[in-house]
Parts: sequence; C-alpha cells; structure tokens
Amino acid sequence: MSSSGMRSPTLRVGIVGLGRLGRRHAENLMTRVAGATLVAACSPLPAELEWARDTLALPHLYSDYAALLAHEGLDAVFLVTPTSLHPQQIIQALQAGKHVFCEKPLSLDLKDCLRVSAEAARHPQLKLMIGFVRRFDASYRDAYNKIQQGAIGSPFMVYSQTCDQYDPDGFFVKFAATSGGIFLDCSVHDIDLARWLLGNPQAVRVYASGTRAMHRDLQQFQDVDNGVAICEFDNGSIATFYASRTTRHGHDTMTEITGTAGRLTVGANPRSNRVEIADIHGVRNECLPSFFERFEEAFLIEVSSFVDAIRHDKKLDLTLVDATEATRIGIALRESLLSRQSVLL
Amino acid sequence: MSSSGMRSPTLRVGIVGLGRLGRRHAENLMTRVAGATLVAACSPLPAELEWARDTLALPHLYSDYAALLAHEGLDAVFLVTPTSLHPQQIIQALQAGKHVFCEKPLSLDLKDCLRVSAEAARHPQLKLMIGFVRRFDASYRDAYNKIQQGAIGSPFMVYSQTCDQYDPDGFFVKFAATSGGIFLDCSVHDIDLARWLLGNPQAVRVYASGTRAMHRDLQQFQDVDNGVAICEFDNGSIATFYASRTTRHGHDTMTEITGTAGRLTVGANPRSNRVEIADIHGVRNECLPSFFERFEEAFLIEVSSFVDAIRHDKKLDLTLVDATEATRIGIALRESLLSRQSVLL
Amino acid sequence: MSSSGMRSPTLRVGIVGLGRLGRRHAENLMTRVAGATLVAACSPLPAELEWARDTLALPHLYSDYAALLAHEGLDAVFLVTPTSLHPQQIIQALQAGKHVFCEKPLSLDLKDCLRVSAEAARHPQLKLMIGFVRRFDASYRDAYNKIQQGAIGSPFMVYSQTCDQYDPDGFFVKFAATSGGIFLDCSVHDIDLARWLLGNPQAVRVYASGTRAMHRDLQQFQDVDNGVAICEFDNGSIATFYASRTTRHGHDTMTEITGTAGRLTVGANPRSNRVEIADIHGVRNECLPSFFERFEEAFLIEVSSFVDAIRHDKKLDLTLVDATEATRIGIALRESLLSRQSVLL
Amino acid sequence: MSSSGMRSPTLRVGIVGLGRLGRRHAENLMTRVAGATLVAACSPLPAELEWARDTLALPHLYSDYAALLAHEGLDAVFLVTPTSLHPQQIIQALQAGKHVFCEKPLSLDLKDCLRVSAEAARHPQLKLMIGFVRRFDASYRDAYNKIQQGAIGSPFMVYSQTCDQYDPDGFFVKFAATSGGIFLDCSVHDIDLARWLLGNPQAVRVYASGTRAMHRDLQQFQDVDNGVAICEFDNGSIATFYASRTTRHGHDTMTEITGTAGRLTVGANPRSNRVEIADIHGVRNECLPSFFERFEEAFLIEVSSFVDAIRHDKKLDLTLVDATEATRIGIALRESLLSRQSVLL
Repeated sequence: MSSSGMRSPTLRVGIVGLGRLGRRHAENLMTRVAGATLVAACSPLPAELEWARDTLALPHLYSDYAALLAHEGLDAVFLVTPTSLHPQQIIQALQAGKHVFCEKPLSLDLKDCLRVSAEAARHPQLKLMIGFVRRFDASYRDAYNKIQQGAIGSPFMVYSQTCDQYDPDGFFVKFAATSGGIFLDCSVHDIDLARWLLGNPQAVRVYASGTRAMHRDLQQFQDVDNGVAICEFDNGSIATFYASRTTRHGHDTMTEITGTAGRLTVGANPRSNRVEIADIHGVRNECLPSFFERFEEAFLIEVSSFVDAIRHDKKLDLTLVDATEATRIGIALRESLLSRQSVLL
Repeated sequence: MSSSGMRSPTLRVGIVGLGRLGRRHAENLMTRVAGATLVAACSPLPAELEWARDTLALPHLYSDYAALLAHEGLDAVFLVTPTSLHPQQIIQALQAGKHVFCEKPLSLDLKDCLRVSAEAARHPQLKLMIGFVRRFDASYRDAYNKIQQGAIGSPFMVYSQTCDQYDPDGFFVKFAATSGGIFLDCSVHDIDLARWLLGNPQAVRVYASGTRAMHRDLQQFQDVDNGVAICEFDNGSIATFYASRTTRHGHDTMTEITGTAGRLTVGANPRSNRVEIADIHGVRNECLPSFFERFEEAFLIEVSSFVDAIRHDKKLDLTLVDATEATRIGIALRESLLSRQSVLL
Repeated sequence: MSSSGMRSPTLRVGIVGLGRLGRRHAENLMTRVAGATLVAACSPLPAELEWARDTLALPHLYSDYAALLAHEGLDAVFLVTPTSLHPQQIIQALQAGKHVFCEKPLSLDLKDCLRVSAEAARHPQLKLMIGFVRRFDASYRDAYNKIQQGAIGSPFMVYSQTCDQYDPDGFFVKFAATSGGIFLDCSVHDIDLARWLLGNPQAVRVYASGTRAMHRDLQQFQDVDNGVAICEFDNGSIATFYASRTTRHGHDTMTEITGTAGRLTVGANPRSNRVEIADIHGVRNECLPSFFERFEEAFLIEVSSFVDAIRHDKKLDLTLVDATEATRIGIALRESLLSRQSVLL
Repeated sequence: MSSSGMRSPTLRVGIVGLGRLGRRHAENLMTRVAGATLVAACSPLPAELEWARDTLALPHLYSDYAALLAHEGLDAVFLVTPTSLHPQQIIQALQAGKHVFCEKPLSLDLKDCLRVSAEAARHPQLKLMIGFVRRFDASYRDAYNKIQQGAIGSPFMVYSQTCDQYDPDGFFVKFAATSGGIFLDCSVHDIDLARWLLGNPQAVRVYASGTRAMHRDLQQFQDVDNGVAICEFDNGSIATFYASRTTRHGHDTMTEITGTAGRLTVGANPRSNRVEIADIHGVRNECLPSFFERFEEAFLIEVSSFVDAIRHDKKLDLTLVDATEATRIGIALRESLLSRQSVLL
C-alpha cells in the first residue's frame, strides 16, 4: 500500500518463533495484512531462520531476542513462543517500547499474568493483545453480534468444546509436562468465549472431571485426554466445557449459547467445505482436520485487527483482564480435576 | 372397536394380492386400522394364501376373484395386483357393489383409465381410490398445508425425484416388460405430487430424456435406469422429474416446491432415523433402504383415510381424474423419451 | 388376533390414571398392541372415567384401586399415576399377582425403591417394568446396537440433555413441589440412557449446578429451570447432563455417546418431520413441540415389548436395579445442587 | 515479494472495468495475489477511475483502452467489461502481446467465440482465460478431485442450479436486453461445471423451458425469471439445469453429480457461515446473499492461478474450447426456450 502523508505509516513487525503457527503469522504479515510489513524474525532454531530466509526472503534474522528488540525502527513484535516464555518476553518488549501480540495463553501462572498487567499499565500508549483467535472468526463474531442485538434474549448458558483429532503419535503428550494440562491448553479458548458471549460475568465456582480414554501415559503428568467442567458465574449464568484429544472425525470446536429467547450454535458440524457425499456409508461430509484449517481466516483477521488498532489507535476489545481471567479459571479447573472437589474463585 | 348403534359398522374388507405390499396392507387392516376388519383374501398363488392362513389366521381364502367378490357381507376390496389387471378388477368390484382401493398406477393405458372412470360414474355411492401413498405421508401433508396457508406465496416450480437403491440383482428388470418404464413406474408418484402441490394445473407439454448407467439390458425394453423430464403446465408452472434405479445411498424420494415467497423441500436427506455418526468417514447418517420404510406410516394413514371416507361418506381428495392425469402424463413422458421430441398433451 | 391353542392367551390389562400419557397407553392397548386387551380402567377423577367410557367404550371402570386389582381375570396393571403413589401401588399389584408396568420414575425415595425391589423378589414369576421410554425409541435402540457392535469402539463419555419447550403458563411449576426437582423429573431419563449406553457402570461422584433463567418462582421449591451436572462412573467414564424448562424452539432431547473410535448423536436437531423451509428466515426446519410427539412410536414399542415379555416369559432388559440407580443418582444431583459440593455415591 | 534472480518477475497488470466485480479483482491484485501487481486501470467512467486513484492510490489511469494496452511494461489485462465488448477487447490485447483474463461469458455470439479462438491460436505464448470462477472454488475443486479419484464411480448425471436472491428493484431486468437471457447469463456457469465434472462430453441435444413468476416485464425481452433445461451428451450422460432470479432465502448455487458408485453435492444449503439459530422459527441458518460472498475466496484463487500459470508457463485447465462450448450450449437453450422444441447441436 502507499505510504502517502494521509495514511499512517506501515507498521514494521518482528516475529519471534517460527513453528507452524508462527509461520502462518509470518506469511500473513508478509503478504496479506494491509498496513504492516514483516521486517525481521527471531528464533533459537537455525532451521526456523533458514525457512524465513528461503521462503520469505527476510533479510534480518536473529537468534537473540534482545537483538531483535534492538532492530532499528521496529514497531511491534509477535510472540509465537512457548507459554513459559510469554511473561518475560512481553515485559521486555514493552520496556523496549514495542507493541506486542502474543499467542494464548498469557501464562500458566497467575502471578505472571499480574506482573504483565502491571508492566502494561506503565505503557498505556502500547498495544498488547493475547491471541484468542476465535473471537476473530466470522461465525463467532456473527454470534456475538446477534447476542448484542438481542437475538436470543438474555444469554445464561454456554456449552463449549474443543476437541482435537486423535493423533496416533500422541504428539501432544510430549508437551503435557509444560502445557498446563487439557483445560489450560484447550479449554482456555472456551473459557474466553464463554466470558465474552455471556457479557463478562465473574466466575465464582468450578468443578472439573476427566478421564484417560486412550493416552494412559498422561497419568505421569496428572493430565487427562478428555475433560469436562462446569463453571458458575456471579450473575447466575453457567458454562459447561468439554475438551478432548481423541476425536476421530476431525477437529471439532463447537459452542452453544442459550438465552431466554433462543439458542445459537457455532460449528455444530465441523464440515471441511460445502461438499456432501452420498454413498454406501450414507450421507456425509468430511471434517476439518485441525484448528489450523478451522481458523485459517480468523488468524488473518486477528492480525489485521491488531495492526489496525495500532495504526489508528483503537481500543482493543480483548484485554489483559480477559487473558488473566482465562488463566485464572483454567488453573481452578485443573485444581478441581486433581482435588475432585469444587473450587471457589 | 365396539360396534354399538352409535357407530358405523365395521367395514368388512377382502384383499387381493399378498406380495410384499399386499401383506403390509393386510396386516394394517388386521390390527391397526380402526373401523375395518380383514375378512378374506384372494390370490392365485398358494404360498400367499398359506401366509394369510398361518400369519393372520384368516379363515376365508380364495383363489378366484369372482368368488371373493361373492363373499357374504363383503364391503370393500383392496387390489394389490399387477397393473394390467387393475381396470378389469376395479370394474368387476364396482359392478358387485364393493368399494375399491387399488394400488397405483390405475393403468398404463389411457383408454382403460377412461373405462374405469365411466364405470365409477355409474356407482356414485361407492368409493374408489388409487393409492398414491405419498399424499398421506405426514411430511408431504405438512408441505401441502403450508402451501394452502400461503407459506411460500404462489407455487410455480416443482422438482421431484424417486430414486431407488441400486439392486445388484436387478430385480426390477424382470418387470421392465410390463412396468410401463421408469416414468410410469416411478415418476407417476412425482407427477401426482406436482399436480397436487401446484393446485392441479393442466399439463400441456413434456420432454424426457434418460440413460442406462448400469442396467444395459434395459435396452431390449426401450427403458432406462435414470430418467429426467420437464413438464409444463397451462398456468405457466413447471415440474422437473428425476427417477433412478441406481442410487447407492438408499431410497431417495425428494420433492422441492418453489413459490414466490419461499421454497419447501420434503425429504432432502433420506435419514433412516435420528442417529448421526461421527467417525473416520466424517459426519454422516444412514439412509432409508426403500420406499417401504420411507412410507411405512403413510401406508397406514392412507388405508385409514380410505376406510374413514367410506364409513362417514366423506369426499376423497384423491380422485380418478388425478389417477388418470398421472397416467396420461407418464405416457407422454415415455413417448418423449422414445421420440426425443417434446410431446404436446 | 386369534386366541388359538398354539398362542399365548391375550393379556387382560387394567390401566390406572388417564391423564395425557395414560390415555395414550390406553389407546395403544386398545387398538395397536397385539396380544393385549384393555379390560378396565381406574381413576379417582370422574372426568377420566367418562373419557374411558365414551372414547374407548370401556365397560369396567373403577374409582378404587383395590377394586380394579380384584377385577376378574385381570393379568396386568399399567400405573400412570403420581410418582408418590408408585411404590405402594406396585407392591399391592404384585401381592395381588399382577404384572406391573409403571411410569418413570419408580420413586423419589431410595428406601421406597428398595421396598419395591424386595417385594418384586418375592414374585419372580411376575414382570415389573418402569417406563424409561427412550430405550424403546428406534433411534436410541439403533445407537445402542451400534455400540454393541463396536461402531464407536469403547464408549467413555455421554452428553445427554432433556430440554422442554418454554411454557409461558409455567404449568410444570405447579408440580415443582412434588416432582423431585429438575434432575429427578427430567434428567432421570438421561441418567438411565447414560448407564445403558455406557454398559451399566457404577456412579461414584456427581456435581450439579443450575439457574433460574425465567421461572424465578421456583426458588420457593429450591428448584431451577436450567440445570447441568457431571456424573463420574467407577470405570472412568463420565456423563454430562443438561435439563431445561425454557427451550424456545421445541422439545430438544439429545444424547451424544463418544467412544475410542467415534461418536454417535441421537436427536441432534429435533426436526418435526422431513420438511425444510427456505425463505427470508434462511433455511430451517420446525421442531417437535414435546416428548409426546418425539416418543410417540416409542411408547407403543415399549408397551408391546412389555406385553411380549409377559406372554413369552422373556427377560426384561430394563430392570428394577436400573430404575433404582436412576433415582439414586438423581437424588445425589439434587443434593449437589443444594450443597454446591460434589457428592459421593 | 522479492524479485530476486531465482524468481519470475512480478507480473504487471492493467484492469479494465471497475464495477463491483472489477473492484474486487483490483483489490485482490493489489494486496493479495503473490507475483502480480496492479499498475494501471482503464474505464470510460470517471467515477471508477476516481475510486482507483483514491482507494488504491493507483497512479496510471486511462479512459482509453488502446492507451492502456500501450502502457509501458504492461504484461496482462483483466477485462471486467460488458460481454459485448469481450471479443474485440481480447483480440486487441492479444495483438498487443498481452496475457488476458476475461470475465465470463466469452461472448453471446458463437462466431465471435471462434474469432477469438483463431486469434489466440496465433499467440500460443500468451495465456487467455475466461473467468468461470466456480472451477476455482475449494468445494467444487474437492468434488472434481474426488471424481478423478473414483469416489463416485463413473459420473453420468448432473443437476446444477444458479438461483439469485430476489431483488425487488429488479436490477437485472435493466440488463435483460443485453445479458443474453437467463441461460447465457446464469446457467452458463452450470453448463461449464457439468462439462467439467462429466469429463468434457459433447452436447448433442437440449430442451429448455421457463416461466415469469414475478418479473412479468421480462416478456419484452423474451426472457424468463425461472428456467429449467435438459442437456444430453454424446456419451449418454445428462445434465439438468435450473436458474432463478426470484429466490427468497439468498443466493443458492448448488450442483449434484451422480455416478455409478455415489453422488456428490456441492452447496446443498447455502449457509452464510457456521452459525445455527434455534428459536421460535425452528432450527435454521442464514444464507449467503449473492455469488459475491459465495465465491469470495474463489475469485482470489482464480486470479492467483492465472498469474501463476503465466509466471511458470503452466497449461490452463480452463480452455477457450470450454468457454466456446458454454456459449454454444447456452445459445441452444435460449433457442429451445423460444421454439418450445428440443434443439440439436
């Protein structure tokens, strides 16, 4: 796009972490997001930097995070790094005067969430957003707007699930030690959606349960491969969550919001596209394999919204309070799963 | 049911033909239709009569049709016989003073249809109904009622299909010589539905086409296993028909009615029940195997309606004109298929 | 049907209670159930007995239960009476040597369940069935059979809901004092389904929560109009329940069973029939208004199965243990709702 | 993107016509298509050029087509102009040595199609593609691939419809004089899909019919607002088409392909997104308003494919023969509509 005087200058972005999701953000920033340009990348892994050089032709590559932050003219960083690094990396970036986009969850530790919030409060001119991508999905956005317009009266009940397709390699088990468990890893999205769609009520009590249907080796991490939970809010509304690592038909993210005048369901059938097959198996549709395909467009809209908010100094809907609450409720769910008791917040 | 003075007497019925459909009618008359009782059966096939004796404990069994008509106290006959016998059997029954229910189609010959109509006109006190069962299906009835109530404005377009599940044994091919071909055998239902749902317009021109996708041996009968047709009516409305013998997912009867304010679809997915399966094939439902399961309830309602019309002397919605028109249009479709020209009616 | 020597004699049945559901059972017994005949009815309400006389032409009508039990030649009774009467009425019938069909739930009191079980054990020749009608629905039966055949591998998770259409008159509120609350009144079906579909595991812990979204006056009964619950079983499987009195689109009974190889869903969309409407509201289907339409066929199959079990001395699948467990779990859910703690069983 | 030595140089594109669709192509070329850049625009309408300057900051604007073709360094033109201009504009561009993308249909006149083909044959090094956008839609592409892989056996029957949402302003009526009528304007897409999905058979006979359900003023143009047609191919396969200008629920593009082993349906319900609404209207989804939303992604993929084919000298799947055949069949349908006879090709 032109950078004429009437327009805000193009945002110069550096990305940190070039795993699968990092690469998508990088490619979006490179070619599809108006008003931003990817100028540098950072990773401790040589292979990731090679990819950035070869595929994106990106000239400025760093293995050291501090060096990236010192890159001349950098406006913002995208953190697509392990959760345990989020708090310190965000704080460093804010102190270096950079806007920050950071993948969810903010942290697995509530104290860290609060430290980040405190630092962010010292830099009111900087934008900081945690990537709860579902809020940017066109269908979830439509549901949210319909609720705002009163389509279902007063919403009081949410059912939300994040069900990942079964991976015989049990790839995710490797990360079980640091993922925070199924509720902090998967349900954190559903928690955020429930709060958002129900009008940001305060969680007051949770109960969680789970089972190891296929991945028995999760026992060593006190984790489960299928978990359910109930979360009660101060205004009487309730959310029920289901998270699974063993779904056979694909990735099945679904959310139901019930109100006094109706119900909205987002994603009732995770169709991969508009094709329907009728054969000896009956009438069927194939399903999306992972969140990656499900939220392909949402990842782009998310980044565009963040860039747009910086360039036109717009208020972000998604706040640090939201990210902190998602972590706080997720931690309580894990505590309930282990204690087998309801947990007060 | 009681046969007290306040009630019409129970109708005494004789059935003719005990093939698959005849047996269903017999069982319905025996146990599920209020106000009627099956008192006798007639068939040239000893095995069919044996079934009536053993399964229904029916005492009066005839191999001769005239003998059945002479059965003491008989009120009505059900004809579930080969189409070629319909006209003569109906006429005999009317002359014997019996009400007549006859399976569709009335006849493959227009002159026979008119002969039957003429005879029926001489017996205005007798009810005669041709079994276009779909009119008695709850879903088709609901669609009809919605149209009457103006739900889709003024209806002007019908798409209707009758698609039978592929039978590797090609059972139907044996009957191809006498069935009248795919349009008179299958589409005759769709023709009747189209006329009914569009408000009984007069057909003025048809065009038909077809192919032999799997049953090449139909060539000897000048028949096809998949046929499509367009039928234009005098009020400007149009119907498109599709009939198939080679459907893989089951029996798929579907009808769409489009009007100036909306569209109704009956049977968009021939689900066998309310179960949905999600597995490595995707999300799917199994399908109904044949018209027998699809119209199980409709066959019962059809017979009950006929019995009710006799007992309370109600006018039948489904008239001989309807049955004659269905045959007339079906014959024109076959003519068009063979001549490859549009045919005026 | 014939009552020849080769056949078991027709079962002579008396019905007790002729409210909406009682009348349906009576009409089914009168005209649609082979092998049974309704010979007498009992009700304390003159209007109900009048209905039996006028509509069914039933000659033997009793206002006194003991008198009905003394009716000459009576084989079985159908109890469609208030829950509080069930235990004593069942025990009396057993002591009088009658087979008993009783509507669900068996009782709201666990001790009463056990008293009935003890009495039943003294009459092993008598059949006693509690009417968990959903087990006789063709779709639930199909799901059960598919699970038995291994279609979804090993089942480990159930989500089951019973959502009644919102009734502005709040009719059910009148019964809130004696219904046992939403979990014992509605979820008791889901509890029974979960146990059945999961292979009869033992419940070990429950947690329940609820809200009064529209019927605030339920507070006086410590009841809610929307409730959710988690039930953990001894084999690691889990069930989640949702019950509602405020559903806008109709009666929505839905059950999902997830296994290691797939998922089955029964009733994902409570379509009223096979009609789909496309108009300015989008593409839609109308929904079933109540459990009465949803389980119309199941009520008939249920009664036929019971009659058949008596006539051919078959073992009933549905046992008193099932009915007792449903009550036991339902009571625990209510206790959890009130205590806001998880409850051990 | 980088223009390093290892890569083909970026394609410099000029666009002609900036109506609704032209603007979309322009924006895609500007920001979302890798390997191409929009360098100039041409339109006789000052307002369109103003839009290009103000919104796209495009510096080179022409009111004269020849001037655009003379633009220094131009590689390709995109023609989004009235159909009547297509042939001459394509020929001029080819003669000027430019690659050409032209919106469908190629022409309403068969002689013009052949003139273009002849000219194109003289410039084998230039790419020329007519924008049958549906071939680039992910769902249609998936269906095509499944057919290639044998998923439905041998395909022999297509049903394809293009139904536009009713526009009370009758906007399209203004263009009826030059659109070529409903079959050349709408069904031309379905014709192309049918040929593509059936393996490019040769059309041998067509029959068409139509009605004016709402737009009676179309009579002056001998056009209809709802048309149906049958098209027979030389290999025995058949296509049925439906086109409508009066659909109430939205834009409904749907295609069914039936083969000897199954059926694929693309777009059975034109859902606008993944939201489902359950309220007093039943269970429903909202629908896409127009082809613009339906094929939003496909327009981008189409342009990217064209650009990619030029840059890497790939063969185009979509040929001039395809575009010519679509026009040829479309003309025959119109002829049949007017003559009320089947038409041989």
